[in-house]
Amino acid sequence: MFNIISIKNGIENVDGFYCGGIDAGLKKDGEKDVAFIRSDEECDISAVFTTNKFQASPIKHFKRYQKNFKTNFILMNSKNANAMTGQKGIDDIDFIFENINFKNIINPIMSSTGVIGYPLETQKIIDAANRFDFNSKDSNSCANAIMTTDSFKKEMCVRVELDDGSFFHIAGICKGAGMINPAMATMLCFLVSDANIPKDDMDEILKQSIENSFNTISVDGDTSTNDSVFLLTNRTKDAYDQTAFKEALDFITKNLSYLILKDGEGSNKVVAFEVNGAKDELDAQKAAKALSNSLLVKTAIFGEDPNWGRIASTIGASNIECDEDKLEIYYNNVLIHSKKCPIMDANIEEKANIVMKKDSFKITCNLHVGDFSYTAYGCDLSYEYVKINADYRT
Amino acid sequence: MFNIISIKNGIENVDGFYCGGIDAGLKKDGEKDVAFIRSDEECDISAVFTTNKFQASPIKHFKRYQKNFKTNFILMNSKNANAMTGQKGIDDIDFIFENINFKNIINPIMSSTGVIGYPLETQKIIDAANRFDFNSKDSNSCANAIMTTDSFKKEMCVRVELDDGSFFHIAGICKGAGMINPAMATMLCFLVSDANIPKDDMDEILKQSIENSFNTISVDGDTSTNDSVFLLTNRTKDAYDQTAFKEALDFITKNLSYLILKDGEGSNKVVAFEVNGAKDELDAQKAAKALSNSLLVKTAIFGEDPNWGRIASTIGASNIECDEDKLEIYYNNVLIHSKKCPIMDANIEEKANIVMKKDSFKITCNLHVGDFSYTAYGCDLSYEYVKINADYRT
Repeated sequence: MFNIISIKNGIENVDGFYCGGIDAGLKKDGEKDVAFIRSDEECDISAVFTTNKFQASPIKHFKRYQKNFKTNFILMNSKNANAMTGQKGIDDIDFIFENINFKNIINPIMSSTGVIGYPLETQKIIDAANRFDFNSKDSNSCANAIMTTDSFKKEMCVRVELDDGSFFHIAGICKGAGMINPAMATMLCFLVSDANIPKDDMDEILKQSIENSFNTISVDGDTSTNDSVFLLTNRTKDAYDQTAFKEALDFITKNLSYLILKDGEGSNKVVAFEVNGAKDELDAQKAAKALSNSLLVKTAIFGEDPNWGRIASTIGASNIECDEDKLEIYYNNVLIHSKKCPIMDANIEEKANIVMKKDSFKITCNLHVGDFSYTAYGCDLSYEYVKINADYRT
Repeated sequence: MFNIISIKNGIENVDGFYCGGIDAGLKKDGEKDVAFIRSDEECDISAVFTTNKFQASPIKHFKRYQKNFKTNFILMNSKNANAMTGQKGIDDIDFIFENINFKNIINPIMSSTGVIGYPLETQKIIDAANRFDFNSKDSNSCANAIMTTDSFKKEMCVRVELDDGSFFHIAGICKGAGMINPAMATMLCFLVSDANIPKDDMDEILKQSIENSFNTISVDGDTSTNDSVFLLTNRTKDAYDQTAFKEALDFITKNLSYLILKDGEGSNKVVAFEVNGAKDELDAQKAAKALSNSLLVKTAIFGEDPNWGRIASTIGASNIECDEDKLEIYYNNVLIHSKKCPIMDANIEEKANIVMKKDSFKITCNLHVGDFSYTAYGCDLSYEYVKINADYRT
C-alpha cells in the first residue's frame, strides 16, 4: 500500500517551496511578524475561509481572483488582522505587492492575523518583504512569524512512500490558540505539497480533512474574521495516490488541531468529548460540541471535579433527542453515571478524579437512542484564559 | 391611571401569604437551606420551566397535576437539585409531603436547586419542615434559604394603587448567579400576588414578562435542569387592572433579573448589549445574545479594553444579515466605530475606556439594515468566575 512517515521540521522538506519569516516591527517586542511561502513553479490552490460575515480584507482580496487561478506566493503577517478595514484594507494589500522588489510573483495572496480594526502598517511590511531571502527554506521562522497568543510554533511534515518506490511530501504550519470554534476560527493554516495531485481532488479532500480536524476543536466558541486554511501544490514530484494523500493530509491536520488545542489560551488539559448512540449524526455533533463549549464543563475540568451532573445538564440543554433513563457517562473507562440511578459510590468519584488529573482524557456519553457518534475536542477554562484575553491589546 | 410603589421587603407584604426558611443541615455551614411559601386561600398558579430536556424531578412532580390545578403550598430547598435522579426523585417528593405534619396542604409543589445527581436527604427535609412556623411571614429567611452561589438575597415587592382607591401587591423572590442563559437558567423565582387577577390572564402575562426580563440576561450561556418561575395568586384583594398588573410584574421581574446579573458569579460589571437597525427581531436578538455570551467580549469587558473589533467579529459570526460598511458601534454615547473606516483617534479609545470603568454601561451596535432592535444583558468574565465554578462541589 503506502507508508506515511513523519519527518522533522516543516515546509523546507517539500520540493520547490521556499519560506521564511522576519521582524518587521509590527510586534513591539522585536519578534518575527512577517513571513512568506513561495514556490518556483506555479501552484494550484484550495482554500477554506471563516464563516464570519465580516471576512477580513485578505480574504476579500483572495476572492477577487478567478476560480482555479494559480499562484506562487503567500505573504503573511501577525499583530494586525486587517479586518473591518473596508476598501482601504484591500487597497493596502495591492499597494504592498506593487512595492515588493522580488519580480517572480504571480497572483500573490496575503494572510493576516492579529487585532481587528486597524489599518496595516504597509511601509513596514514592504520594507521587511524586501529584506526576505527568497531562496531560504526556513519553516521555523515562518511558523514563528505567524504566532499571536500562541505559546509555541506549530509545524508538521510527512513523507508518503508509495509501493512503486515513488514518494511525495505534505507539510503544514498553523497558528491558533484562542477564539477557536467548531466552525473553524482564529487560526491560519498553510499546507503545501509536491505531490502530483489533480486539481479536481484538492478542494474536496481539503474540505473533508478540515471537517475531521479543525472543525472538531473548540477553545472558546468564538469565530474570527480571518480564519483560513490554504493548500498549495506545485507537483514537483510525479508521485500521487488519492487514498495515501487523504490519509497523510488528515494526519497533518489532526495533529495540527491537537497542537492548537494543547496551546489553547491558558489551557492545561485536552479533552475528547465522545457522544455515542445518538439518533443521527447531527444530534451527536450538537451534543459533543455543546460539551466542548460549556463554560461549566470547562471550569469543572480545570478544577478536576468529576461533576457529571454538568455533563448531563449540557446534554439535556443541547436540543437533541435524549432520555434521562438511558444516558451513560464515562470518564475514560470509568462509568460514573448509568441507567436509572446515579452511582453514588465514592470510590467511583475517586477513580474519575484520577482520570481528570491527566493532561488529556476522554468523556464519553452514550445516549442509547440510536447508532450515531461524534467526537469533539475541547480544553479547560483557567484563570490564565481570562488574563490573556483581558490583557490582549495592552 | 395607577401608581406602582416599590415597598420594602418581599412576600410578607402580600395578603394571605406566609413564608419562612430554616437550616435543615443540607448545607454544611449551618446556613438556611429549606423554605416554604403558603397561602390560606387556594391559589391559581402559572409556571414556566427550563427548556433543558433533563428536567429535574420537582418539575416532573409538578407536571403530574391536572391543568388548572390549585395549590396552597411550595416547599423549596437549596444544595441539592434533585435532578437526574429518576423515579426515585419524584417518589422522594411524595414521601416528604406525606410526612409533613401541617395538614392544610393542597397539591403541594416542590422546587429544588443545587448539585445535580444526588438523591435528596428526605429525612432532614421532613424534620426541618416540621420545625417551620407556618404562620410566619419571613420573606428574608425564605429568600436566603434558596441561595446557592448567590452572594446576596433577591426580593422585591410593589403595591399597585388603582384610581378607585383599591390596591394590590405583587412580590417576588429569586435565586440565581451562574449558569444563567437567555433561555432562562439556573434560577428559581417565586412570585405571589393578592390581586384579583383572572386565571386566564396569568399564563400569558407571566410568559411575556419572563421574555422581557429573565430571558434577556446571560451569565455564562449554560441552561440548567431546574429553572422555574412560579406565579401564585390568592385573590385576597378585590383590586385588579390588567395593564397595571403587567407593568408591576415587569417591574419586579426586570429588577430581579438585574439583581441576578449583578450577582453573576465573579462578575463586576453589568452590560446592556443593544442591537439596532436589524433586518428583523430574530436577527436583533441573535446578535445581542451572541454579544452577551461571547467569552472574548466578556473578558475584554473585565479588562476594560474598548476592543470594538471583538464586538464586530461577534456580530459577523452571529449568522445575521449585516454589512461591514454600515456597522456603527457605541460605548454609551461614544461612537468608536462608524461607516467605512474605523476611528483611530486615541482620544475616542480613552473616552470609551472611561465608560468601561463604570459598574454598568451600554454597548450599542447599529446594523443599519432594518428597523428592529433587541437588548440583551450580560456581565464580564473574571478570574473569580473560574474559581467559583472550578471549586463548586468541594
